[in-house]
Amino acid sequence: MVKHLLEKNEKGHVVATCRNPGQATGLLELKNKFDERLCILQLDVTNETTIKASAKSIEERYGSLNLLINASGILSIPNVIQPETTLYKVEKSSLLHAYEVNAVGPILVIKHLWPFLKAGGGSGTEREVAVVANLSARVGSIGDNRLGGWHSYRASKTALNQLTKNVSVEFARKKDPIVCILLHPGTVDTDLSRPFQRNVPEGKLFTKEFSVQKLMTIINNAKSQDNGKFFAWDGQEIPW
Amino acid sequence: MVKHLLEKNEKGHVVATCRNPGQATGLLELKNKFDERLCILQLDVTNETTIKASAKSIEERYGSLNLLINASGILSIPNVIQPETTLYKVEKSSLLHAYEVNAVGPILVIKHLWPFLKAGGGSGTEREVAVVANLSARVGSIGDNRLGGWHSYRASKTALNQLTKNVSVEFARKKDPIVCILLHPGTVDTDLSRPFQRNVPEGKLFTKEFSVQKLMTIINNAKSQDNGKFFAWDGQEIPW
Repeated sequence: MVKHLLEKNEKGHVVATCRNPGQATGLLELKNKFDERLCILQLDVTNETTIKASAKSIEERYGSLNLLINASGILSIPNVIQPETTLYKVEKSSLLHAYEVNAVGPILVIKHLWPFLKAGGGSGTEREVAVVANLSARVGSIGDNRLGGWHSYRASKTALNQLTKNVSVEFARKKDPIVCILLHPGTVDTDLSRPFQRNVPEGKLFTKEFSVQKLMTIINNAKSQDNGKFFAWDGQEIPW
Repeated sequence: MVKHLLEKNEKGHVVATCRNPGQATGLLELKNKFDERLCILQLDVTNETTIKASAKSIEERYGSLNLLINASGILSIPNVIQPETTLYKVEKSSLLHAYEVNAVGPILVIKHLWPFLKAGGGSGTEREVAVVANLSARVGSIGDNRLGGWHSYRASKTALNQLTKNVSVEFARKKDPIVCILLHPGTVDTDLSRPFQRNVPEGKLFTKEFSVQKLMTIINNAKSQDNGKFFAWDGQEIPW
């Protein structure tokens, strides 16, 4: 996402956040190439102090934002959290951990960056509005749930969908120039999907570049009437 | 619910759980009247040890269940958690607290009582199946969310909907004689709704007796094809 935003625009600044900037080799390479157009900040969505500190940095450096992408999320961590294959394996600690990262984290980020999105709107873009794009997942759909399993992950993404919808309602009522959308990126060849890629049908494991290009098309074309909606990578709406 | 079950059936045992049995005056009155037909157990949905202990008691005393009603839930606690009127007021602690009680709690109860529901099925009832009835709320619907607000409560109920759907899929696949349903009781005159009753339209604040009678009708008529569905008190399905 960061690479795409830097390469596809000639100017414009990107703020990238991660837990360990010193180890983020991909971001550091981009920093070498794009220098002051990229700002890397330390942020852990489970630590609200780091969210507030990032908001403060953004206020001081830029004062406004025209796009916020919440792409952080967990599905499995060896020896800590595993996608559940049956109710027998559901543990309270996993349910709470996934909820904290996947649902609570993005909402706190929006809470603290809201004033800057309001100030930014669509400035510097071809859009009329700022966009909040939350990375959700098709398995977060209740109506589309035919397989079961993955309780902690599914429930956290479903809750993220509701929280995003909730925020979109408030932004619309206050006539803030911000549109909130939920995105399903498809199954993308990343660390998150790696342990589960053997079950992906041929042609359905996307490269990062393919998925990012599809999602950025949806983001760049976002309009007021898209506020609060849930889109797959191909632009199709996904049922709740 | 407990009173209705004891009064409308001539035999049959009811297990009622609560956090403080010694202070549960309503249950203690019923215990005086119905004696051995009512068993009161101490259970706090945020304390899995008490859930396991209750499961153990049920195993030893009865060995099976034909109905499980998860009616515990929080909306507001003075000085601890308040329904949010705006994103600015959303706090991590409230999001996690509501999730733990309203979504995680019921799922852990189902996890530990699953074997007894499987053993019980519809035995002793006119149903062919055991029923798990989870008290949800219309504000947990994403599709029906037009007002926003109440972030912590809404998201926890939405997650409960997904988790219940998830469990229903597994029970169906294993051909267990259990049906899981989600119920919206309407706005009922209880401690939970009391701080918010002034906004309820005339005729829409239900007595406990009215709501219980409506919900029990849905429960008593539950069939396989209702598995995983979300019903309002009047039997209408609610969108996700």
